[in-house]
Amino acid sequence: MQQNQITKNSPQIQSLRVNVGERGYAVSIGAAALDQLTQSEFFQGNQVLLVTNHTVAALHLAQVLALLSAAQNQLQVETCVLEDGEEHKNLASAEQIFAKLSAMRASRDVTLIALGGGMIGDITGFAAALWMRGVPFVQLPSTLLAMVDSSVGGKTAVNLSSGKNLIGAFWQPTAVLADLNLLVTLPDRQLSAGVAEVLKYGAINDSAFFAWLERNAEKLMARDSAALAYAIAESVRHKAEIVARDPHEKGERMLLNLGHTFGHALELAGGYQKILHGEAVALGMLAAARLSEILALAAGQIELAQSLAADFERLRQLLLAYSLPTQLAFPARATELLALMKLDKKSLSGQLRLILWRGVGKAYVGTASDAQILAAWPAVL
Amino acid sequence: MQQNQITKNSPQIQSLRVNVGERGYAVSIGAAALDQLTQSEFFQGNQVLLVTNHTVAALHLAQVLALLSAAQNQLQVETCVLEDGEEHKNLASAEQIFAKLSAMRASRDVTLIALGGGMIGDITGFAAALWMRGVPFVQLPSTLLAMVDSSVGGKTAVNLSSGKNLIGAFWQPTAVLADLNLLVTLPDRQLSAGVAEVLKYGAINDSAFFAWLERNAEKLMARDSAALAYAIAESVRHKAEIVARDPHEKGERMLLNLGHTFGHALELAGGYQKILHGEAVALGMLAAARLSEILALAAGQIELAQSLAADFERLRQLLLAYSLPTQLAFPARATELLALMKLDKKSLSGQLRLILWRGVGKAYVGTASDAQILAAWPAVL
Repeated sequence: MQQNQITKNSPQIQSLRVNVGERGYAVSIGAAALDQLTQSEFFQGNQVLLVTNHTVAALHLAQVLALLSAAQNQLQVETCVLEDGEEHKNLASAEQIFAKLSAMRASRDVTLIALGGGMIGDITGFAAALWMRGVPFVQLPSTLLAMVDSSVGGKTAVNLSSGKNLIGAFWQPTAVLADLNLLVTLPDRQLSAGVAEVLKYGAINDSAFFAWLERNAEKLMARDSAALAYAIAESVRHKAEIVARDPHEKGERMLLNLGHTFGHALELAGGYQKILHGEAVALGMLAAARLSEILALAAGQIELAQSLAADFERLRQLLLAYSLPTQLAFPARATELLALMKLDKKSLSGQLRLILWRGVGKAYVGTASDAQILAAWPAVL
Repeated sequence: MQQNQITKNSPQIQSLRVNVGERGYAVSIGAAALDQLTQSEFFQGNQVLLVTNHTVAALHLAQVLALLSAAQNQLQVETCVLEDGEEHKNLASAEQIFAKLSAMRASRDVTLIALGGGMIGDITGFAAALWMRGVPFVQLPSTLLAMVDSSVGGKTAVNLSSGKNLIGAFWQPTAVLADLNLLVTLPDRQLSAGVAEVLKYGAINDSAFFAWLERNAEKLMARDSAALAYAIAESVRHKAEIVARDPHEKGERMLLNLGHTFGHALELAGGYQKILHGEAVALGMLAAARLSEILALAAGQIELAQSLAADFERLRQLLLAYSLPTQLAFPARATELLALMKLDKKSLSGQLRLILWRGVGKAYVGTASDAQILAAWPAVL
């Protein structure tokens, strides 16, 4: 881990607005972004429930509690520490949060704080959406993945034993503070997994950002503060623009699922243990790129197929530059993975809607036959 | 029970529009309103999960399933029959619904149908709000209370052991079919309990409707079809207007809680066994009327206090005319009830917001001291 690449307590905080929901909200990005917690207008009432997990609590809880106790409001802060891991993102953990809220007799003015990665953000948002039919919550993402993806956009959820994110709600946070200092303690593998979602924004609709990511892999992997801040801000900007235009995923927002239908099948095949979400998305994007090439060939579009083959290779090189996998590390068969794809909740009434591309920065929603999907999988197996 | 007062299969269906949510929705009121289930545009997809309880299933499930099988879409209908009773409106029952949805591999196009009273409507709406972050649902209320109150307005919820409706979501149905034929089998006590919420609309802001209810008690209690249809339509119209102006209860919608903060204390004191919700609301409205008089006296408004005393008596006579209680049937002390009122979730950061009135049709949001509330309770004890 590189502990000293990020300038601590830098005064430069970028603030991006997400125009969704009744008021919209700000995402603040920078070293020491957490300092905003001490500002008096940050909380409606004075009841606060902070939700985190054991791993993150050991690293960052003391700092956040100190900031909250320095807040200008007289806050009454309670803490709910959940078990770490996606397998605990379920109704039983949500009930732990509800029990805490009941015990503190939390009113409609309570603010929930999510301190952690995507799992903590998703379940805290879920609890905030439901408590008394909705109370404010604040996201303090502690991973790159959460900063660039899950903390923005208002998708909250828990898993059922029958599937991931099967129940949830659209519920927007009142603020997101992406503090670069929290990334100092992030393991390298988690950093790379987060980068996968960053690359996705370039792949979807921004070839200039894709090219910037090609040029700046070394800096980002060395956790250069300015490079991280730029990559996070660009990612949030892309996501915020798409979410503002399509908050409930009825159209354009589906593009953000590039790599995800393939990726979810890989996560399921690995029992959510063998592969990280970001790694699965990386392989999923490669599979989607290969499928796009197969579709072009099937349509007799030879020139397009050739440029898609070149962009497949560009993407593969980029994944390698960020220490992301380009081949699945455990055995799985294409037929099995196709069956798992069909379990995905984006499979509308049986028809798989896939995110494909016409090259870097040109993603679209499409479909493919089972045979074409089976032919694409070997590219990453 | 009067079984023959309602004209079966009358062609007169009134349709009222509720302008809330993205599209708004219609509430259809009349004998045989359920026949609309057979219309081809009624369902988006062809998956349907019908949720009901054992009591209602025995009376009406066969009829509803027959209508669904006659629908012009080829529907795939599954049924989830829950235990009867408010004590089962909890997360465990919601998980039964989610398990059914998982087993049928329900997509985002599934439609949930709530066939029953308020408990079934609340929990089915809750499940519909959460499944894949929201799917359509249809309300088929089987009680007068559900027709005039809980099926309209989009408040969904389940109870926690620590309190009623503590978790939930605002989620609007796509249609409400209030079929008067379902009221034929409703026990008399349940009919009266439903009338309590009808009277509430007159008490809040419509003295002409209040006077109509004074004149038509005999007809309504005899389940006269035209009188029932009018009372339900007026109630839905009042609720729809208020909900459209304030869907998330930030202001005016609070008026709909007239009698409810007092009433919830009575329900809690009776362990949700000794008193029906509508009966508690009836007593709660009386207590609120007495409190309003006490406040006028405290402010030296002698004339207002006198007219409030007269309107208290008008309300008491109206409750008697509809076989509703005017005195609590089990022992409870004012101090105990005051403490229970403060547990109510409408108690914002400790301050009780009460719905009071300046007479029939003139409700407002106000506050009162503990001593004043304690002085009001004996009016119904």
